[in-house]
Amino acid sequence: MDEFGLIRRYFARAGGDGCVRVGIGDDAAVMMMPEPGNALVAATDTLVEGVHFPVTLDAWHVGWRAVMVNVSDFAAMGARPRWMTLALTLREADPDWLEGFAAGMFEAASRYGVALVGGDTTSGSQIVASLQVMGDVPPGRALLRSGARPGDTIYVTGTPGDAAAGLDEFESKDASPVLRERFMKPEARVEYGLALRDFATAAIDVSDGLYADLDKLLIASGCGGELYLDRLPLSAALQERYSRDRQLEFALSGGDDYELCFTGPAAAPPAADLPVTAIGKVVRGKGIACTEDGRAVKYADKGFLHFK
Amino acid sequence: MDEFGLIRRYFARAGGDGCVRVGIGDDAAVMMMPEPGNALVAATDTLVEGVHFPVTLDAWHVGWRAVMVNVSDFAAMGARPRWMTLALTLREADPDWLEGFAAGMFEAASRYGVALVGGDTTSGSQIVASLQVMGDVPPGRALLRSGARPGDTIYVTGTPGDAAAGLDEFESKDASPVLRERFMKPEARVEYGLALRDFATAAIDVSDGLYADLDKLLIASGCGGELYLDRLPLSAALQERYSRDRQLEFALSGGDDYELCFTGPAAAPPAADLPVTAIGKVVRGKGIACTEDGRAVKYADKGFLHFK
Repeated sequence: MDEFGLIRRYFARAGGDGCVRVGIGDDAAVMMMPEPGNALVAATDTLVEGVHFPVTLDAWHVGWRAVMVNVSDFAAMGARPRWMTLALTLREADPDWLEGFAAGMFEAASRYGVALVGGDTTSGSQIVASLQVMGDVPPGRALLRSGARPGDTIYVTGTPGDAAAGLDEFESKDASPVLRERFMKPEARVEYGLALRDFATAAIDVSDGLYADLDKLLIASGCGGELYLDRLPLSAALQERYSRDRQLEFALSGGDDYELCFTGPAAAPPAADLPVTAIGKVVRGKGIACTEDGRAVKYADKGFLHFK
Repeated sequence: MDEFGLIRRYFARAGGDGCVRVGIGDDAAVMMMPEPGNALVAATDTLVEGVHFPVTLDAWHVGWRAVMVNVSDFAAMGARPRWMTLALTLREADPDWLEGFAAGMFEAASRYGVALVGGDTTSGSQIVASLQVMGDVPPGRALLRSGARPGDTIYVTGTPGDAAAGLDEFESKDASPVLRERFMKPEARVEYGLALRDFATAAIDVSDGLYADLDKLLIASGCGGELYLDRLPLSAALQERYSRDRQLEFALSGGDDYELCFTGPAAAPPAADLPVTAIGKVVRGKGIACTEDGRAVKYADKGFLHFK
């Protein structure tokens, strides 16, 4: 099967609303902006086999993840994802792999309301899946990393650390199904990101680890932060299976959570069908100061916890 | 240097007009559409080391080409490219290579008026550079592949075949500088594509070879075509160095020209500072019928020319 046959067979599905005027099959895609005054939002994220996912991860979950990591950036911007293009490099046109990848990708795309409008399929020595997602946000309403101010409360959605623990035990026979699922099929918080536009002062999605990503938000905002380790919302599965040090290591330095970390008033953030927990406070200065039950503790990102 | 240092050092350059509200450094880029009623246009193209360019091609030209192959799709749509995101997979963060790649990429981006607004840098076993370009076109004015009608004249810009010949002799010591340059530094016909909006009925850019790409245009239009091989505009350099069969092979089946092939009235197409040549006619039916000096000839795409 050549490149064009492969695209027709696996990727040329009808999708999108009437806004897609030209989809797959011409030199470029053409879309009408649903709200002509809105700003265009774009993000790209790449998954490399063996780097961003284990080579043993099945194709369906690679396809799901490729969409999810991108729409998670939209969640962090309070923006609506709408369309995507796929740049897919493959060793070979393996029908089983392609079938699974396309199924996972289209299921995630449909879940988040995104239509595939174009792409490029190439051959190479390793699987590299880059998706680029486009969408929109009302002008001036995008959530940035830079809007946090001293006094703001720091929040996180969900139960961070589960995905990293799920990856840690991914190959193990007695892996926790809950943690494994959290690694294999993360969910981007797109609807909650949209709800945050009226509440949050700054937001970022947690892909590299809560500590590192919060640090990026604080640096962009020119602030420091206090992080209350005893308030971290840890899942029952994580707490049952790991020591306290490992729980913190996964929750603070583990990646792949795709939860939202955001700042805003101390008053109640928008309700959600997942935990939303106040875990700290924005302060003047720089860096992250951790406390546990009111005592200062030193957390060295990368998984070492040193009590002062 | 980690991913973030690398992005700051090589890729975080100021660029773009006031329309870029959020560029590199947040979760996603945010742009205002310069003409709010216009349609959004998007294309993505990937270069894989050793597949789309020789491993000996220097980084500057890889960077140039990565932009150029994408904006060439905009030329074919009669659309204006404006912004791009880069998904770059590298074996290692080689400063010399990155310096060269960024320089070539930004020179091409500046040449075509495109600003880098975001990206993702990852590690892998092979260089894979995917660019995704966004831009706009007035609603309903995009040039499609599907608009050709029987009776239309078929045109091509420039002198196809040069890039394929330049690649053929790329490693040779007595390579023609002209042909080598045409392979190494192709030019997308963006301005001419914009001018074609008032003239062309259909257009495609020549990336896989004139014969194959014209065939795609004709299939999309539900038509056939007559192609006059004796009218093919072949460069002096190509004619001097190759037999007639090889000239035709390069011009018809060689890739990487990035000229425009388009259809329209027999009356004069827009003037350009490059040759624009009538090379055939759209007819009812399907397939491409070649003639040479009025005699029917059979051309088997992939480089074999059989006289009937």
